[in-house]
Amino acid sequence: MVDSSRRRGQRREVMSNHVRCWIWGRNVVLETLRAGTWPILELLVADSLDERLMSETLRQAEQMRISVTVATDANLTKSCRTAEHQGFAARMAPFPFRTLDELNRLLPANGTVAVLDRLQDPFNFGAIVRSASTLGIDGILIGDREQSDVNSQVARSSVGAINHLPIAQTDNLSRAVDQFREQGFQVVAASEKAESALYEADFRRPTVVLIGNEGRGIGPDLLSRCDECVSIPMSGQVGSLNAAVAAGILFYEMRRQRSLPKAR
Amino acid sequence: MVDSSRRRGQRREVMSNHVRCWIWGRNVVLETLRAGTWPILELLVADSLDERLMSETLRQAEQMRISVTVATDANLTKSCRTAEHQGFAARMAPFPFRTLDELNRLLPANGTVAVLDRLQDPFNFGAIVRSASTLGIDGILIGDREQSDVNSQVARSSVGAINHLPIAQTDNLSRAVDQFREQGFQVVAASEKAESALYEADFRRPTVVLIGNEGRGIGPDLLSRCDECVSIPMSGQVGSLNAAVAAGILFYEMRRQRSLPKAR
Repeated sequence: MVDSSRRRGQRREVMSNHVRCWIWGRNVVLETLRAGTWPILELLVADSLDERLMSETLRQAEQMRISVTVATDANLTKSCRTAEHQGFAARMAPFPFRTLDELNRLLPANGTVAVLDRLQDPFNFGAIVRSASTLGIDGILIGDREQSDVNSQVARSSVGAINHLPIAQTDNLSRAVDQFREQGFQVVAASEKAESALYEADFRRPTVVLIGNEGRGIGPDLLSRCDECVSIPMSGQVGSLNAAVAAGILFYEMRRQRSLPKAR
Repeated sequence: MVDSSRRRGQRREVMSNHVRCWIWGRNVVLETLRAGTWPILELLVADSLDERLMSETLRQAEQMRISVTVATDANLTKSCRTAEHQGFAARMAPFPFRTLDELNRLLPANGTVAVLDRLQDPFNFGAIVRSASTLGIDGILIGDREQSDVNSQVARSSVGAINHLPIAQTDNLSRAVDQFREQGFQVVAASEKAESALYEADFRRPTVVLIGNEGRGIGPDLLSRCDECVSIPMSGQVGSLNAAVAAGILFYEMRRQRSLPKAR
């Protein structure tokens, strides 16, 4: 079970190449292990863990054929570069993003997709995945530039939702949005500059919603592809919302409308 | 303008007593200075500031009769115990919470109040104040136990909204809620356990909404005082929302309903 000897020689090189590919923290690591979606290359558990938790974790890892190293707290801290590991750290394979085709196949009839245009804050990204999963969005699509990767903080702020909600990545968001339109999806942008209120849109059709970068909003190329632009009515001295809160409100409004009886 | 000599003798004692009463960061400190709501006892600015920003800050502080110390970056770091001060740190008087009576006098006809029951995370507290201010809630009421104080992180995540939205504190939330009911407010609890959906409530009347502690929800004593319990419909593997996102959705739904024409 403890096979540190085999890997010790490779450890240093692997760490320098993949230092951004660690996740840590008890809940995040255990949830990711259980879900089996995001492949764990190597699991490190602290030798200070209580016996029951240790044996459960070893059993689960063995079932999933994942190599486990029992190490000191200090070694875990060194591997994931933070002391906040709570006894669990895992070196991860690249996140298994779905392709656009795979996402399409997973969508139900009358589906909903959230397209994130260059979301940069990992906390916001994770919280948006959590809200999307909880409020019935069917999938997430992101680009491959200026976009937060799925990392430990995203996993943590998603409370594990990254393991359950389909997340696809594409090298061309505009083309992907065009494809959705051709399939009959309406494309709605959430933009602070829009004049229509969010609740004036009709979300009961198949819908792609665009959510923009925290500072700069949705890029002009994507924005030009939208059927409709909507905003959350705001007022007051601050007059803006946290990006994750705004996305949560958008998903809620979609869910609210979709739960209404068909004939109003 | 620079009067460090007068205060130097007092500095050490003041710091140990009031170490939790510092705010820092350029935007938060300047916004608080400009708003003039939360009294600044002493402003520290870094001698590394550019000339224009320095002279503007000194002028504004002089107008408001606030004592300024120009100090090294290292001294600022020592005072606020973080290097993330961006050249601005301020030692604050206690936050000027409104009394319940003051809050009442500030409420418009058909007003809305959010009561926070032992919100403990400063990030959530600040984000909730920001959302409340932006989505038209008229005031916030908190208790004085197990409740995050208004501190630098709350100020920051509120993006300055703590300076503009009335925030009252009371030593007896239950009695305060009773008083609101006697004045004709309906009392609505947001609870994950509620069976009614959020959008089934009618928020077009004067309304007090209760938002509970992140882990334990609303206390039983407060909950027993509610006319109605509502929840955001949720599903999925995670099945929960971040507390700040949930509060934002609640405030949005209140605003949405209140913007509908009276006769539907």
